[in-house]
Amino acid sequence: NINGDRLWDSLMEMAKIGKTAKDGVCRLALTDLDRESRDLFIKWCKDEGCSIRIDKMGNIFARREGKNPDLPPIVAGSHLDSQPTGGKYDGVYGVLSGLEVIRTLNDAKYETEAPVEVVCWTNEEGSRFAPAMVASGVFAKVFDLEYGHSRADVDGKTMGEELQRIGYMGDDEATIDAHPMGAYFEAHIEQGPILEDEGMDIGIVTDAQGQRWYEITLTGVEAHAGPTPMTSRKDALLGAARIIELVNKIGLDRGPLACATVGMMQIHPNSRNVIPGRVFLTVDFRHPDDAVLADMDAALRKGVEEIKSGIGLECEFEQIFYYAPVPFDPACVDAVRKGAERGGYKAREIVSGAGHDACYLAKVTPTAMIFIPCVDGISHNEIEEVHKHWSDAGGQVLLDAVLAKADE
Amino acid sequence: NINGDRLWDSLMEMAKIGKTAKDGVCRLALTDLDRESRDLFIKWCKDEGCSIRIDKMGNIFARREGKNPDLPPIVAGSHLDSQPTGGKYDGVYGVLSGLEVIRTLNDAKYETEAPVEVVCWTNEEGSRFAPAMVASGVFAKVFDLEYGHSRADVDGKTMGEELQRIGYMGDDEATIDAHPMGAYFEAHIEQGPILEDEGMDIGIVTDAQGQRWYEITLTGVEAHAGPTPMTSRKDALLGAARIIELVNKIGLDRGPLACATVGMMQIHPNSRNVIPGRVFLTVDFRHPDDAVLADMDAALRKGVEEIKSGIGLECEFEQIFYYAPVPFDPACVDAVRKGAERGGYKAREIVSGAGHDACYLAKVTPTAMIFIPCVDGISHNEIEEVHKHWSDAGGQVLLDAVLAKADE
Ligand SMILES: NC(=O)NCCC(=O)O
Ligand SMILES: NC(=O)NCCC(=O)O
Repeated sequence: NINGDRLWDSLMEMAKIGKTAKDGVCRLALTDLDRESRDLFIKWCKDEGCSIRIDKMGNIFARREGKNPDLPPIVAGSHLDSQPTGGKYDGVYGVLSGLEVIRTLNDAKYETEAPVEVVCWTNEEGSRFAPAMVASGVFAKVFDLEYGHSRADVDGKTMGEELQRIGYMGDDEATIDAHPMGAYFEAHIEQGPILEDEGMDIGIVTDAQGQRWYEITLTGVEAHAGPTPMTSRKDALLGAARIIELVNKIGLDRGPLACATVGMMQIHPNSRNVIPGRVFLTVDFRHPDDAVLADMDAALRKGVEEIKSGIGLECEFEQIFYYAPVPFDPACVDAVRKGAERGGYKAREIVSGAGHDACYLAKVTPTAMIFIPCVDGISHNEIEEVHKHWSDAGGQVLLDAVLAKADE
Repeated sequence: NINGDRLWDSLMEMAKIGKTAKDGVCRLALTDLDRESRDLFIKWCKDEGCSIRIDKMGNIFARREGKNPDLPPIVAGSHLDSQPTGGKYDGVYGVLSGLEVIRTLNDAKYETEAPVEVVCWTNEEGSRFAPAMVASGVFAKVFDLEYGHSRADVDGKTMGEELQRIGYMGDDEATIDAHPMGAYFEAHIEQGPILEDEGMDIGIVTDAQGQRWYEITLTGVEAHAGPTPMTSRKDALLGAARIIELVNKIGLDRGPLACATVGMMQIHPNSRNVIPGRVFLTVDFRHPDDAVLADMDAALRKGVEEIKSGIGLECEFEQIFYYAPVPFDPACVDAVRKGAERGGYKAREIVSGAGHDACYLAKVTPTAMIFIPCVDGISHNEIEEVHKHWSDAGGQVLLDAVLAKADE
């Protein structure tokens, strides 16, 4: 059995790096704080006798050898980067429960057939560098390395530069070919309200919903807010407001499974007495059914076209990120289900609303995910919280699933 | 007669300070660039033999003595600060046409009865430090000195600190009592389309419309854009979008004279896959009729209340700035009208859509304004443009009006 206290203590220790005033975490990808968290993770892994490999996207692999070193490793992990006002568990839980699996195996002096690895993926959140999960995407050959290195933050700093700067540009090729896996498991908080509402401890994740991300730039005419008549304005912010309302309606109109969000906006020149001349905004669409996602896409394109012509704005419109809904590997999902049964946990099948590194891994290796609930379903928020018995349960199921595959 | 070429050359020279890529000006109040423009203005004034006084709000007065030094001075001026993406004329034209009046009097070795002064007011734009015209407001006793010094920019730097830093915290008391005036004239670009549309060279400004400025902060709940169902969201940005639409409607519904603008917004945490938890936005209302302005205020309060309860947001709502419509002094307006007639310029009466330092000055001294057209009515934009013959005309009318009052 895993040591739930040790896992919890490690979560709390890691949460000190980038701790915010409201007890959350701000540890944006490839910042100095991200480096600190990586350094601590590597120290802990080395304490357990693991060997470390880092690839050209900064993904970190910590390996515990198996009886048969020629077998591909069974890998568990997630990410250590956070949202600007993120919580203590999103990502970190998957990395540290993976570490807890290794610690438990060491305590028991248990030798698995296949090697067991823990992985920390770079820039999962997609907040500092869009899109999300870019480094696991490169690893799964969805993006090439050059694309990964060239992703830039709002100040124009690229992932390649920042990997170099914090010393995490490794030597390994960042692809599954250079680093084959037997299976990949990711434990994660649900980030939604379903498990808690139904009194569940464990979510057996069968699928992840599809996503489309967009960038829209509206250009009108900057002019003085005082003497410029309403009827002769080309107000880019009014256009943006209409797109926000449209996006919200597209989400609401497509039933309880659709999500549609404008999360980011930049207004130019952003001065109280100037009619905004340019607005940049992002759109995030999600649905488990790819056809519905395509229908949301069409509705957005049509609506934006009407809005821009209605006001007389110029519009740049780009879909910058898309992945289809992802089904996880039935055998891996089954390993999770059996783990939950063995532990006697209340569990149900669930579709992931969030994107995860596991979504890309599923394209190249047998993959599944384990969800634990989070309080009020809230994450991407400093108040993100988890009850310790949920954390214990998830770690135990992860151990079981990893063992099932490592000793297959 | 004024020397229009010299005035134009000085405008172009001043426009080099803070010149932007698109040939506009970015010279925010109390930045190093603002200091540079002040230094140049003072150098030019000293070259003309003027004495300089600077008050505790950083307002600069350059004085040309009259036959009778005991008479209060006739003052002309405006401001040198700009919007973030502003133009070469807004404010600068009023300061440098005032300087051109003094240069012309010197050329002609003409001695006026009363002294003539040129003034440069601090932070007219209200872009870096809200509200607008804060230093002329202190001078006119609408605000006290402490209020003026405590205005802060988005980084929390105050006007008091920044005045000290750039060396423009003067010794003079910043009030009309310490600095009485015989009359105040401000030449300015119209910043709207009326004069150009009607083929006019000069606007005889009879009134300035009233203004109300607001700050609104909406607070909802930050949450993950993926697994958080549409129906359980408290999206602060959706609330902001509805307020933008409301503000636009309030403006449109109240006839051609009403203006209503959301110019500035800050979104928190501003991350693509996070439902925005907090949004700050500003509202700017204008109308020449105070009763209509009050009605706009009531409509905003009612609408915001409905919008926030509709989504379940918290809301902080504050009116941070108000002034009633301002009538200018009939005798001063008449001096402008006579000047325009004498010059043979096409002129019409006009109401100012923008706020100007003259609006505060009008409360404490006989005041009037002279407008010249600007191309397509556009200002608060780098492409703000003026035809030279308009600039010549405005300078000439200013000279005439100042002389009429100085020799009264
Ligand atoms: N789990 C998580 O927060 N992932 C970030 C990518 C997404 O927005 O789904
Ligand atoms: N003239 C001018 O641009 N003034 C700024 C204050 C206002 O917004 O009216």
